[in-house]
Amino acid sequence: MKAIVKAKPGKGLTLMEVEEPTLQFSHDVKIKILKVSVCGTDVHIYEWNDWAKDRIKQFPQIDGHEFVGRVIEVGNEVKSVKPGDLVVSDSHIPCGYCHQCRTGNMHVCQNLKILGVDRDGVFSEYAVLPDTVLIKIDESIPLKYASVMEPLGNAIFTTTAADLRGKVVLIAGAGPIGAMAIEIAKLSGAAFIIVSEPSDYRINMAKSLGADLVINPKEKSVVEEVLKITSGLGADVFLEMSGNENALNDGIKSLKSTGVASILGVYPESKIKFEMNTAVFKNLTIHTITGRKMFETWYMAINWLKYHKLDLSKVVTHEFDFENFEEAFELMASGKSGKIVLNVTKEEEV
Amino acid sequence: MKAIVKAKPGKGLTLMEVEEPTLQFSHDVKIKILKVSVCGTDVHIYEWNDWAKDRIKQFPQIDGHEFVGRVIEVGNEVKSVKPGDLVVSDSHIPCGYCHQCRTGNMHVCQNLKILGVDRDGVFSEYAVLPDTVLIKIDESIPLKYASVMEPLGNAIFTTTAADLRGKVVLIAGAGPIGAMAIEIAKLSGAAFIIVSEPSDYRINMAKSLGADLVINPKEKSVVEEVLKITSGLGADVFLEMSGNENALNDGIKSLKSTGVASILGVYPESKIKFEMNTAVFKNLTIHTITGRKMFETWYMAINWLKYHKLDLSKVVTHEFDFENFEEAFELMASGKSGKIVLNVTKEEEV
Amino acid sequence: MKAIVKAKPGKGLTLMEVEEPTLQFSHDVKIKILKVSVCGTDVHIYEWNDWAKDRIKQFPQIDGHEFVGRVIEVGNEVKSVKPGDLVVSDSHIPCGYCHQCRTGNMHVCQNLKILGVDRDGVFSEYAVLPDTVLIKIDESIPLKYASVMEPLGNAIFTTTAADLRGKVVLIAGAGPIGAMAIEIAKLSGAAFIIVSEPSDYRINMAKSLGADLVINPKEKSVVEEVLKITSGLGADVFLEMSGNENALNDGIKSLKSTGVASILGVYPESKIKFEMNTAVFKNLTIHTITGRKMFETWYMAINWLKYHKLDLSKVVTHEFDFENFEEAFELMASGKSGKIVLNVTKEEEV
Amino acid sequence: MKAIVKAKPGKGLTLMEVEEPTLQFSHDVKIKILKVSVCGTDVHIYEWNDWAKDRIKQFPQIDGHEFVGRVIEVGNEVKSVKPGDLVVSDSHIPCGYCHQCRTGNMHVCQNLKILGVDRDGVFSEYAVLPDTVLIKIDESIPLKYASVMEPLGNAIFTTTAADLRGKVVLIAGAGPIGAMAIEIAKLSGAAFIIVSEPSDYRINMAKSLGADLVINPKEKSVVEEVLKITSGLGADVFLEMSGNENALNDGIKSLKSTGVASILGVYPESKIKFEMNTAVFKNLTIHTITGRKMFETWYMAINWLKYHKLDLSKVVTHEFDFENFEEAFELMASGKSGKIVLNVTKEEEV
Repeated sequence: MKAIVKAKPGKGLTLMEVEEPTLQFSHDVKIKILKVSVCGTDVHIYEWNDWAKDRIKQFPQIDGHEFVGRVIEVGNEVKSVKPGDLVVSDSHIPCGYCHQCRTGNMHVCQNLKILGVDRDGVFSEYAVLPDTVLIKIDESIPLKYASVMEPLGNAIFTTTAADLRGKVVLIAGAGPIGAMAIEIAKLSGAAFIIVSEPSDYRINMAKSLGADLVINPKEKSVVEEVLKITSGLGADVFLEMSGNENALNDGIKSLKSTGVASILGVYPESKIKFEMNTAVFKNLTIHTITGRKMFETWYMAINWLKYHKLDLSKVVTHEFDFENFEEAFELMASGKSGKIVLNVTKEEEV
Repeated sequence: MKAIVKAKPGKGLTLMEVEEPTLQFSHDVKIKILKVSVCGTDVHIYEWNDWAKDRIKQFPQIDGHEFVGRVIEVGNEVKSVKPGDLVVSDSHIPCGYCHQCRTGNMHVCQNLKILGVDRDGVFSEYAVLPDTVLIKIDESIPLKYASVMEPLGNAIFTTTAADLRGKVVLIAGAGPIGAMAIEIAKLSGAAFIIVSEPSDYRINMAKSLGADLVINPKEKSVVEEVLKITSGLGADVFLEMSGNENALNDGIKSLKSTGVASILGVYPESKIKFEMNTAVFKNLTIHTITGRKMFETWYMAINWLKYHKLDLSKVVTHEFDFENFEEAFELMASGKSGKIVLNVTKEEEV
Repeated sequence: MKAIVKAKPGKGLTLMEVEEPTLQFSHDVKIKILKVSVCGTDVHIYEWNDWAKDRIKQFPQIDGHEFVGRVIEVGNEVKSVKPGDLVVSDSHIPCGYCHQCRTGNMHVCQNLKILGVDRDGVFSEYAVLPDTVLIKIDESIPLKYASVMEPLGNAIFTTTAADLRGKVVLIAGAGPIGAMAIEIAKLSGAAFIIVSEPSDYRINMAKSLGADLVINPKEKSVVEEVLKITSGLGADVFLEMSGNENALNDGIKSLKSTGVASILGVYPESKIKFEMNTAVFKNLTIHTITGRKMFETWYMAINWLKYHKLDLSKVVTHEFDFENFEEAFELMASGKSGKIVLNVTKEEEV
Repeated sequence: MKAIVKAKPGKGLTLMEVEEPTLQFSHDVKIKILKVSVCGTDVHIYEWNDWAKDRIKQFPQIDGHEFVGRVIEVGNEVKSVKPGDLVVSDSHIPCGYCHQCRTGNMHVCQNLKILGVDRDGVFSEYAVLPDTVLIKIDESIPLKYASVMEPLGNAIFTTTAADLRGKVVLIAGAGPIGAMAIEIAKLSGAAFIIVSEPSDYRINMAKSLGADLVINPKEKSVVEEVLKITSGLGADVFLEMSGNENALNDGIKSLKSTGVASILGVYPESKIKFEMNTAVFKNLTIHTITGRKMFETWYMAINWLKYHKLDLSKVVTHEFDFENFEEAFELMASGKSGKIVLNVTKEEEV
């Protein structure tokens, strides 16, 4: 089958023929991949940055972890899905038995395997995954939106960490996940959404998504603008989605006392200079976020999509054929896109 | 000044001249009343039902507890408002010093005095209230919406007791508060809103407010319909706003296990027949609701109104001149209205 | 192997030879049962009351669901336990894939099978269970305490539903689970523990466990006593463990406004007369409880026992040989015991 | 009257005669001070460190903010206390009307005045305070324990930010507040309490208070020891009470994924080097803490002391006469004490 593969250390990914995977365990499920979408992590692996060098250890390894597909074969003890089912999946494969898995925290399983990072991913025509991570979805959900439900889950997990009803929310970073966060914050009853973002493309995206105020931190002080809007009180909630140290500290300084910060960003250095005393004197609640709560975030996403409450039409900005993945990766790297979807298999072929 | 007064026990209320109130304590504030709105409680006092007979002890007493007004005079230690400020107020006057007041629960103060019930209300040209219950609001909020912020707070308190993001919500009762709850549930990210309501007028109101499904319990089984929609799982959240025992039990039976019920309804009998075993085997969380969390619910309402996120145009259905209050009370009693506002003073007169 | 079996409808249970179970699925585990303990449910099945008649459908069926045992054989995909491990287990066998299982609520799985009720139980020399419900425990935990960890989990789930730190707690019912709740409430920082209990045996047990005040509701008004102790405020938290309608309503009337009730009791009738208006005007939070949160309650129990913080020496009052089970059941039915343990296999025989 | 006064900038405090304060507002209360206790903040003001230079602006100003006293005179609208009442008080004087005060967060009032910092304190024979901060306490609470209830509130607020039932808790710093935190953690159901502390005096205090394990970070790796104890999982909860950057980062690294950190420490620099990526990949909840939740923490303290559940006998280590305050300050600065109490007025003199 065709797959986008990290063949060896170094820049780039290769579209090549690899062996089709087969069922190995009683709970394995074989899936025909329909659409995949490209994550910043894929771009890191493509560009082979420090994180990728440190983290990717097997070659060749199929890249990718965001997809929608159709079940074509199931292991002998699988009951939760059957051939023909439309499925999406978490990219975090948990063991199911550790302390974390058994207390509702599979997303931080002590034995976690991440698709496309710790094991073969899903940028391929077929994939075999354990039934424990598969979620059957409604046929009414458009495939291109289904293919971005995994990163949508990150945005949901971060955004729903705080109650936004009637609140003033500051979002730092309007990349693809930040863009989703704007949609979710609107949907969650935020009274006023402020976005801090320096890129013109993303400023326009934030505005088109309905942010109430977009601040370019290169032009204006985020802290001053937030305090002005809130008559000196500060924002109720801060969502950090930029991975930028200054944006983080500006957010902390923009929060009201007893405010809530939810931090999804990952920073270039392990230790960063953080305004901890400011945080302490404000009596904040800070949620640091990784992955997606399984499966609460998935069920929220499914319901919002199924009942047409969440509109992703402005968030998924591009679609490419699978073969043209390099063009997609370069566009993603340029920062001038929302989510980008690759078409692996046309449904009529399945 | 003119006031609508419960002059003596028995049916009816009287529009009459009474003495204008004056400041008595260092934190008292005198307010020119602009608009008031009519509550079901006012109708009970008007109709002199069993509850009213048991609860109202002073005559004559000015009725009413929902209003918007303008400050005209303040006591010598008042700092939070000043003459000219547009203000609304909670109807629950707390002592400020009991265990409840000191732990964020002024709405159930151990020494509570309710406007128009335990002391003179606000259906009058002027009122004197302690600064502790007054909230200055933005001039941009339309006066007729400001005058219904007190019952809006009940709806907010009940509806926000559960997280509604991505959830299927069942609301029993689409009277004025139920109607507000529909708006708030939509605003709070509910994925699918089901309303149970037998009255044609209110069924139409629920539909026009955007309920996803309205069930007439006289025609269909609420429990069956909810289970059908949710593939047998049950609703995530149930808001009981009807005060009807059957509606309550249907709601409990319609909930999924680990669902959340939020009960604002008050029932005709002190003890009702309740499906407790059903509740126990479902591991529910049940919030019983009274009043409005002070002042969290007020700040939510202010932000939603100030930033144009909450639309009350279909909820406030009628306005009457103060003199025509009896017509307003009769309409309210008929069940064929949303909130009804009485115009006490035209702003240009202030 | 020997097993205590419900051979056919009607009163009684039979100690008889049955076939030894064998592994059937890749995740099955075979366990040598060491000790079991007797639950009120077992007594219902023994006495064949209305609940049992309605619920038990297969004959013959092995009774029992509380045990500690040692793994002797594992299926070919089992990794979480190995032969020789000391294990306990939840009695609720969840499917692992439904909405409830996937949102941390396996205890109310939509396809739940309960040991000794929906399938063969564990009052037998061996049992085969899926690895999904087994928890390996520390060898340092005494076997007789390990055998009661399942009902301990009910007590923990109920008691920890509210924050008890510095709180006045009312517990209705000091049977075996109520007795455990007293221990857990003490351990959880309750400031003052009041127990309501009519039986002399249990009054003495409650006192010996360190309840600060024990009220006999046949002699004194629970509501009056609680209000007296709390200067009219009411109790902060109420744990209903009696299944008695009057005890439940007394508890609701004894609570302070904004108090928390946690109800584990199951009532003789599906609908009971409940003081709902009292609850509504108090703005309560009511948790209805069933089963045990998996596996949070188990980890709490393990840590408390492993680190010697929880003392069950006064809660486990009797041990019997497996053969003398009828004596144990009669004692349990009399109400004059705490938890009763049956010794199935002596460890040296394993 | 006698008072301990910051007469002018520079090292030291002066015991001198100052004018006795008088009632000024309708809600003022005059108190005879019985005992006070010394806080690290008082030592900073005494030693005149950078924080003190930056923060203290009025001279002369009476120092001190922890006390117990007896009401001797009340303003004309005071109802909550009366002459003769034994009272304690929060040191944070809130305005009562800002957004924070009105949403249960008086401890971070937008117009906060702190005793002994922003206005005259209580190291004096008399003080006048608004009734809004006074709490009447039970006569049965020993005066020396009553005088330390303010810092006890800090310890309670920090420690109760997380649920500790059955949890492994790491506490960094066993100074006076850390020592109180050990007591509260034990009382709150912690299964295993680990303390990290480099000072011999405080190591011994932590052990005598019942910490399960005390680690000297100069001798052993805190992270390694915690991971060893928890079989690689990490601690459930981390309480940072040291104000030390390394202790903070060690705590974050010692936490399990989804763990909870509660940070009361204040750091020498505004920005510190913080392991944010570690926090992000662990999906933590971090509470930054200042002051004491008013009045929830006070009611917890009162109940625990009144009902003899909290033992402060090992936490309050020294008592001095008011005149010998310098000796007390020097001892406090040496780190070789728990809480130190100064006797201002003997009760028989009142």
